[in-house]
Formats: sequence, C-alpha cells, structure tokens
Amino acid sequence: MSSTAPLSEKSPENLTAYVNGDFVALENATVHIEDRGFQFADGVYEVVACIHGHFLDLGPHLDRLQRSCAAIDVAMPCARAQLEELIAETWQRNPFDDAMIYIQITRGAAPRAHLAPDTLTPTLIITSRELPRPSDEKLACGASGITLEDFRWKRCDIKSIALLASIMGKQEAHRQAADEAFWTDADGHVLEGSSTNILAVIDGKLVTHPLDHQVLGGITRSMTLDLARKAGIAVEERPWTLDESGLSECMLTSTTNAVLPVCSMNGKAVGNGKPGPLTGKLRQLMLAAMEDLRRT
Amino acid sequence: MSSTAPLSEKSPENLTAYVNGDFVALENATVHIEDRGFQFADGVYEVVACIHGHFLDLGPHLDRLQRSCAAIDVAMPCARAQLEELIAETWQRNPFDDAMIYIQITRGAAPRAHLAPDTLTPTLIITSRELPRPSDEKLACGASGITLEDFRWKRCDIKSIALLASIMGKQEAHRQAADEAFWTDADGHVLEGSSTNILAVIDGKLVTHPLDHQVLGGITRSMTLDLARKAGIAVEERPWTLDESGLSECMLTSTTNAVLPVCSMNGKAVGNGKPGPLTGKLRQLMLAAMEDLRRT
Repeated sequence: MSSTAPLSEKSPENLTAYVNGDFVALENATVHIEDRGFQFADGVYEVVACIHGHFLDLGPHLDRLQRSCAAIDVAMPCARAQLEELIAETWQRNPFDDAMIYIQITRGAAPRAHLAPDTLTPTLIITSRELPRPSDEKLACGASGITLEDFRWKRCDIKSIALLASIMGKQEAHRQAADEAFWTDADGHVLEGSSTNILAVIDGKLVTHPLDHQVLGGITRSMTLDLARKAGIAVEERPWTLDESGLSECMLTSTTNAVLPVCSMNGKAVGNGKPGPLTGKLRQLMLAAMEDLRRT
Repeated sequence: MSSTAPLSEKSPENLTAYVNGDFVALENATVHIEDRGFQFADGVYEVVACIHGHFLDLGPHLDRLQRSCAAIDVAMPCARAQLEELIAETWQRNPFDDAMIYIQITRGAAPRAHLAPDTLTPTLIITSRELPRPSDEKLACGASGITLEDFRWKRCDIKSIALLASIMGKQEAHRQAADEAFWTDADGHVLEGSSTNILAVIDGKLVTHPLDHQVLGGITRSMTLDLARKAGIAVEERPWTLDESGLSECMLTSTTNAVLPVCSMNGKAVGNGKPGPLTGKLRQLMLAAMEDLRRT
C-alpha cells in the first residue's frame, strides 16, 4: 500500500476501472450496448470488502462467483489466479483504506438474440470504491424493515445481475420510509432482504433461513454463523416467522453492513425496539475480524 | 425511404445506433458500466417490426413501454412524439426493408447502490437491424418446444430486461435440440415461451393464457387474437394444458416470428405433428397485414 496515493487524492473523477483487459478512467468505463449484461441481465457479480489492502473472505467470494457462472453456463473470463491479480491491481489503483470491490461477469456482447453464440468472450469489469458503512444513527437505533411477499425468480441462490425485483423491493421500502425490504414466502417465513440476509434471535438461538433456491448464500451470513458457533451461540438454519414467541432480535448481514441490528419491521418494534445484545456481540466479533485484517 | 442507402450497403460495420442523444456507429455504441441496466437489470424494452418504413403497431408497443416504465417507476426519457421521431430516424439511418427496431430504457447511470438517486437521467438506446424471419424449414415443419416449470419472477407482465431466466430457458431448449422453452405453472398450465407467446387450438377454438402477472401481453399475441375474432374464429383466454383432449394445434407468436406453428412438444407430436390449418390461416392473415403496410 505504500506506493499508492493517499485517499484524499482519490476523488470520483480519478477512479480507475478494469474493463475487459484495460484499466480505464471510471468516468470513461463503458460496455457495448449489445453486451448481454445490459440487454438480458445475462451475468453475475460479487461485492468484496477490502480492509487496508486485505480482502475479506476473497476465497469464498470467488468460489461463489465460479458457482454463479457455472449455474448460468458462462465461462470464467480468466484463470482464478489472474482474476485475483486483477482484483488486487484494481484496488491498488483505487486504494481506499476500506474499499468495496465490485466484480461483474457477463456472457459477452453479441447482436441481440436470446440464444447466445457459444463463441462469446465473457465481459469482466472490476471497480474499487470506498466501502460504505452504516450511519451512526443506524448503529445506535437499528435499521427498519418492511416485509414483501417474494415475487423474485426461483433461483435466488445464483448471484445474478437480474436484480430488478430487488430494486423494486428497495424502492417500496424507501416509499415506506424503511431501510430494507425483506422477502417472505407464502407462509410468512422470512427469507432474506433485497440486498442483505436476515437472522433472528429466537429463544436465545441465532436463527436464519436455510440455504435453498430462495436465498443467496451470503458470505457475511456464513461468517456470522461461524462467529456465532465459535462463540458458543446455538445456530439454527430453519424457516422462521416474525411472530414466533421468543423472537427478541433481528439483524441483517451484508458486505457493506457487516452485522446491523433491525429494530422495527412493518412499523412495529422488533423485541424491545433497541439493538439487542447478541446482535451487538456478533457485530463486534465481525468488526474485530475486519480489524485483524487491518493489522495484518 | 428514397433518401436512404440501398440495403446492400448496410453491413454490420456501418450500422448506426441511437444512444442518449447521439447517433453513433453501432460498433462504438456504449453505455457506462454503472448504468443500472448493466448492473441491476433496471430497465425495460420493446422490439418493433418495421415493414418498408412503416412500423407495425407502434402505438401499442409505445403504450406498453410507458406502462413498463411506470411499473418500475422510471421516467420516460423524452416526450412520446420525440421518441417516435428518434425511432423513425434510427430506421432511416438503418433502412432495412424489413427491420427490427429495438428500444431500451434504463433508469440511468449512478454509483452502484440498490436505491437509485431520484435525479437520474434515464438511458435510451435504439437500434435497427434486419428483421429475422423463421426459416423455410420451420415454416414447413413447425417449431419444436419443451416445457419447463416456471422459475421466473412474478411480474412477467412487465417487459423488463431482467431476462436471465428466459435465457436459461432458451439454453435448456437448445440443449434438448428444441427451438423454444414454454413455461408451465405448477398445475401444468402453459403460460408463454421464453421470448414468445403460445396459443393452442382446442376443439376448434383459439385458446391462450389470460393476461395476468405470469405472461407478457404480447403485441403480436393481441394482433393474432384480433385477426382471429375478425375471421370468425372463437377465442378463449383461459388456462390450458397440453393434454387437453381436442387440442389439435399449437402456435407461437412474436414480433420476429409473427405466427409460427409449434408441431412438437417435449419430443411428442402436437396434433398430427404437422402445421395446422388454423395456424396457417392466422399466419397468412398476419403476413397480409404486414404486406398491407409494405404497400402503404
């Protein structure tokens, strides 16, 4: 990190993006209008946190990226080692101390037809921006949520860019002055948020929906469950509802939020309406893991 | 049409696209990598046929485009009259005698976050390419289909670019050496194809799934139903299954296929396995309507 410009010199105007073999000024970073990512949502992505030049769980993120590509039958654009180098170089050119690396792969560009030629070169873009953090107010008072019956597709286990339903969910949350929309199935089970996973504390146990086609296997979700297990907290991956007696806390997890309390849902308090102790503990464990990276 | 270059001079290299206010060489037509169409499938589109410079049902296409934009809360990028002028100019610059006009609107470009700023300028792209036509073999022998249980989102009435499920459906059809994948609901009702609508002839009536959130209100579907009614053919919009007794024909409809017989489904013959008379009649009526445009 010593060779990079200090953060203060990095304004949005001089960020650099990787696009299909070249590093270019982000403001000039483009893809063809017939890129299948633009016309068909025919692609997948990852968002990785980078703390002081160290990537948080890059391995699991790249494992999932490969699984997502395989699920939609898109070839990885390059060997994994090369991808890791490109990610590192993208950060080095945009060396935010806390960075958010965005990686997107699409099937490539071709004259528009649903069935793609099998000769396409996949598109790869990588950007590095400052990692957003929850506001002090959200940390102190918790985030607010609404629930929406899930109208997304049935392969939410694939981290695809076909995110319009999630956008509509987030918009609806915003219209209701809430921070996040959480999808529920027809039986009222809480699945995940539009861009987060959600976990509850029920009778002292950490409960979250099991991995299936209805939820994304979030890397931060997985880290949180691991941290909980190591701390001796019981974990249950099972369908759950908001009206279960014994539900005392909810929390959301994501790369950009780490672990964040959710203190109201559909305008009603969750538990006592304040960030709960288990949420606080898991957030501290997660931040400690991130700070460990900083000190590496 | 007199001022335009003859078709033979239009090669893929010198096509022109409209992108956000400018006409540019298609090969250089790009959007920003942070366009929300590319990162979130946050956009909608239309495909319009243009016969000898006359657009086929442009009004209904633009009505639907406005409905799609409204459904996802994206502003139209310009007034309708101006959009019509841009579409006309795009064709004039790429004056295929039978042209396929592609129009896409996205919410615009912004640093990636699910919740978009409400100040974005929508992205508008328009292209004109040669209208593909079904091959003689497909017309003579009919298209083949497979059925897949629907795993798309629950707002298929919106003509959005979040098309990854449809791409996966088309790929699966291709793997099974079929032309199209048709989505079925949990009860086996046939909804629509991955890029087409589907209609059946059952007991001499033209039957197709009613308009709801599971199907797109296809313009060619609607034209076909209108032509049938005018020709005295009974039309029923109701859920239907492939194993109904009395089912003698299937046909698909789309801008690029007009009306096309579907003569096999999941490897089994539909009816007697040959293009049926009602399909043939409706195709001829549709082609006649298109030829009427040519003579306008």
